[in-house]
This record gives sequence, C-alpha cells and structure tokens, in this order.
Amino acid sequence: MRLATIRTAGATKAVRVTDAGLVDLGFADVKALLAADDWRAKAAVDGPLVEADGFAPVIPDPGKILCVGLNYRNHILEMGRDLPEYPTLFAKFTDALIGPEDDIRLAPESDAHDWEAELVVVVGKAVRRASEEEAVEAIAGFTVMNDVTMRDWQFRTREWLQGKTFEGTTPLGPVLVTPEELPGGVRPALEISCSVDGEEMQRANTGDLVFDPVALVRYLSTIMTLRPGDVIASGTPGGVGHARKPARYLQAGSKVVVEIERIGRLENTTAYPDAAA
Amino acid sequence: MRLATIRTAGATKAVRVTDAGLVDLGFADVKALLAADDWRAKAAVDGPLVEADGFAPVIPDPGKILCVGLNYRNHILEMGRDLPEYPTLFAKFTDALIGPEDDIRLAPESDAHDWEAELVVVVGKAVRRASEEEAVEAIAGFTVMNDVTMRDWQFRTREWLQGKTFEGTTPLGPVLVTPEELPGGVRPALEISCSVDGEEMQRANTGDLVFDPVALVRYLSTIMTLRPGDVIASGTPGGVGHARKPARYLQAGSKVVVEIERIGRLENTTAYPDAAA
Repeated sequence: MRLATIRTAGATKAVRVTDAGLVDLGFADVKALLAADDWRAKAAVDGPLVEADGFAPVIPDPGKILCVGLNYRNHILEMGRDLPEYPTLFAKFTDALIGPEDDIRLAPESDAHDWEAELVVVVGKAVRRASEEEAVEAIAGFTVMNDVTMRDWQFRTREWLQGKTFEGTTPLGPVLVTPEELPGGVRPALEISCSVDGEEMQRANTGDLVFDPVALVRYLSTIMTLRPGDVIASGTPGGVGHARKPARYLQAGSKVVVEIERIGRLENTTAYPDAAA
Repeated sequence: MRLATIRTAGATKAVRVTDAGLVDLGFADVKALLAADDWRAKAAVDGPLVEADGFAPVIPDPGKILCVGLNYRNHILEMGRDLPEYPTLFAKFTDALIGPEDDIRLAPESDAHDWEAELVVVVGKAVRRASEEEAVEAIAGFTVMNDVTMRDWQFRTREWLQGKTFEGTTPLGPVLVTPEELPGGVRPALEISCSVDGEEMQRANTGDLVFDPVALVRYLSTIMTLRPGDVIASGTPGGVGHARKPARYLQAGSKVVVEIERIGRLENTTAYPDAAA
C-alpha cells in the first residue's frame, strides 16, 4: 500500500494512493491512521475518491523525529573511518517539516544550507525493547526526507541540533510505502539520490546502511517507547555540499530533488521568505 | 502566580497553587492553559478548590523540550575553558518526563545514571525571531528539571541525545512560577541545588548563566517558532557525578532532591522497574 496525507479544503486527510485515485480513509492524517487498532485493515478499505490541493508531510506532526548520523557503509569506508559501534542520534522538531512540493525556507541567518537525501522508517506500533520480530512488526513502512542542514549552525557547537531544525526546511513524503511492496521488505535495497538544478549530487543504495531499519528500531526502543507516527531518518550517503571541494550550498531558487526508487520523490524549490536578519 | 498540573481521578487538571489550596482553572494541564488567549487572566480567576492525587510534570507533553549544555559561568571558568560564543543545544522527548515525586526509572542497560539540576524556562506565547521585548513577553515563568543523564550512552557517540532521553528519567515541576514573583524577574537570581541521599552535590545561583532566559528565547526563536508550553532547560552547574574523582552515579533506592529557592523541589527515588536486559 501507498499512503499519503493530502491537503484539501483547508484541512488534511489520510488517503491510499491507487491507480484509480486517492481513496479517503476517514482519518485526519497518516499518523492518526497508524494510531488506530488494526490500521492495516483500515488502510485497505474502499472509500470515496478525493481530490488533493497538494501533499502535506506524510506525518505532519510526529511525536518524535529521530535522525541518524553517518550510516552508509561505503561512504564511511571511503572516508577512511571505521564502521561505528553505535548509531549517532540527533533530533528535529515538527516545526522543521514541510510537504514534498513546498518551498524550502532558507534562513537569512545562514550561509550554508545543504542537502541530505534520507530513507525514513515510519513506526506503526508502540514498542519498547523490541525483539527482532517485534521490530519488524513495528515498521509501518518507508518514506523520504531531505534533511536540509544549516552547516554553519550545525558546527557552531559540538551538538548538531541547532543546524538541523530550522523552521520550514525539511520535506517529508510524499507517501508511506509498506514493506511488502519493496525489494528487501523491512530492509529495503533501493536507489536513493539527490540532485540540485538537475546535477546529481548523491547516489547510493539503501541496502548499504550500517544500522538497518530493524536494527534502528531495536536500538531506539531500548531508550524509549517508539509510537505510531514516530519517524526515524536513517542517515545520508556521500555527496553532500559541505564535503565538496570547494563546498557548495543551496542558493535561492534552486530546485532540489530527492528520490528513492519505488517510494517517491521530493521536489522543492529554495526561497528566502523571511526578511534579512 | 504558582501554577501546576495535578493528577486527579485518572486525569490531569491545571491549578493555581494558593495558601487556601489548589484552584481548578478549567484546563487539562498548564500547556493547555498557556495556549489560551490571555492566559494570565484565566490563570488568575477564582474557581473551586480541588484535591490532588499527586503532581504530573508541570507541562506533561511539551511541543519541544530544548536543553542547553554548559551554561554556568563560574563552572566554565573553573574548568579553565573560555566562555562559549553560542549555546550548545540538544533535545529530549516527552517520553522522558516524570512528575516531581515519581520514581526515576533507571535503565538496566546503563551503569552511569547522573544528576543535573536545572532552571527551566516555560514559553507562554508563540514567538519567532524575538526582539528583547518580545522575548521577555514570551516567558510564562520558570520551573525545575533534573536532567538525569546516562553518561555511558551520552558518550557512545559525539551526539548526546541517546544519553539524555531515556524513558521515565526526567522530573519536571512541581510548579511554574511567574517572573514577577522572583528576584530578577525574567532573569531570576536564585539558589539552585542538588543533593543525593542528603549529601549536597550541586549548588549555584541561576543569576550566573552565560545565556540567560531572555537570550535563550531570542537565540532559539531565530531557529524556529517557540510555542506555548515549549520548555527550555537552561543547563546545569558544576558538581555532577561524572566529573567527580572517582565518578559517582545514582544507585537503586537513592533519594535525589533538586531545589530552586522560591520555585520548588523535585524529590525522586531511583528504581529499576525494568527487567535486566
């Protein structure tokens, strides 16, 4: 199944994306659907088709947005580093999220806006200290994030948070795809890429993660209960602008495309809606 | 005014704490009160007195829990470091919060549970890129946190998050005190302390912060909109267990008291409710 949260008539709705159109599932968004008992059956029902004014973040208000640092094996090895023993974890807040076609809001306070294509795990069931089997069962599906990062703010201090959660910077969506639709299932092996103004910047395969989706659910659920609608951004491969020589960053009016095969595509234009500081 | 979120008859209520008792303000919790228009007037009304079964976290479900790293001037200087140019910021998630008298849930996966007494700023008004005056206006008041930290997990990687947000570890409360009740107002100068089993571990004055509450609201609101009920833990002074020689950590059955004069006291016992991993 392919699920989305659409904007329609000033509100949002959870829909199933089908060849015939968007099926209204009777929930305000995909998080509300995932919180329902037996959500897989409720997501599969027939319902009226509905028109979208556009797509919202597939989970508009996650209880937790968990992010993983360097997690692509080839990229770590090519940088001459050892594979990490533990995942590096940081957070974002909901205010950062935008829809898959919304403008990315560059901040006048930063000179170093960068891209990061990421596979995102969406949690579908409350789970704590998950066994392998429980972790598999807790994965509702996968979506796409562009973890846009203000590099200057990220490295102002030793903690990355302040460069990771600027308001209106982080597209999430367009759809949640359930594991049975994907090669590799809960450990999907899919091409992931990012381009800026048509130039390819990142390309990798999500099968190359050091900590795969099941391992991440197990690790994170040791720390706290994961709940329906929580999202886990699994890290980005090589090719970010900050690591290029010379470094390259997003400018106003850039078109940034992040795509994962069989899941979908984020296509966002960068803009400076806010007055200079 | 002194405001709290109490537990009563299986639910929570926002109350004003008075000499006569707890005045029911007609809101489910202090966050819901702060989100109401003209909340200061609504918090001041007369209402029926109500009995509490206990105190919940004063904000049970903050939209954001923002935390600041090393921020006490004397402690930074005594460690031989320069004062920082920018605040170090990290996050917690709501699952970490407990009430001011609840047990602190030690995790069998950690051998290094530490204490951190902190003054917390509670936001009372939505604000972005706040001026000095707007930041002052956006501060609803202050409360107390014990930012209990799993040091081994904190330092597994370069990002602190995973040691900072274990479930059921972080007491917050007991009350929100509005600035006009406090010497120093929105920049309160108050004794803050932490003791473990009656032995004083931390003592400092909240007037010693490098980044004071107004500065923190201004800085954080540059990044994103702060909203009613968001909380900002302003950092801890010297005296944590990890920095002692030899290091000291919390054991099961410890009584940990964190107190800020004129605000209140967190008094929590440590326990291992979860089976060994």
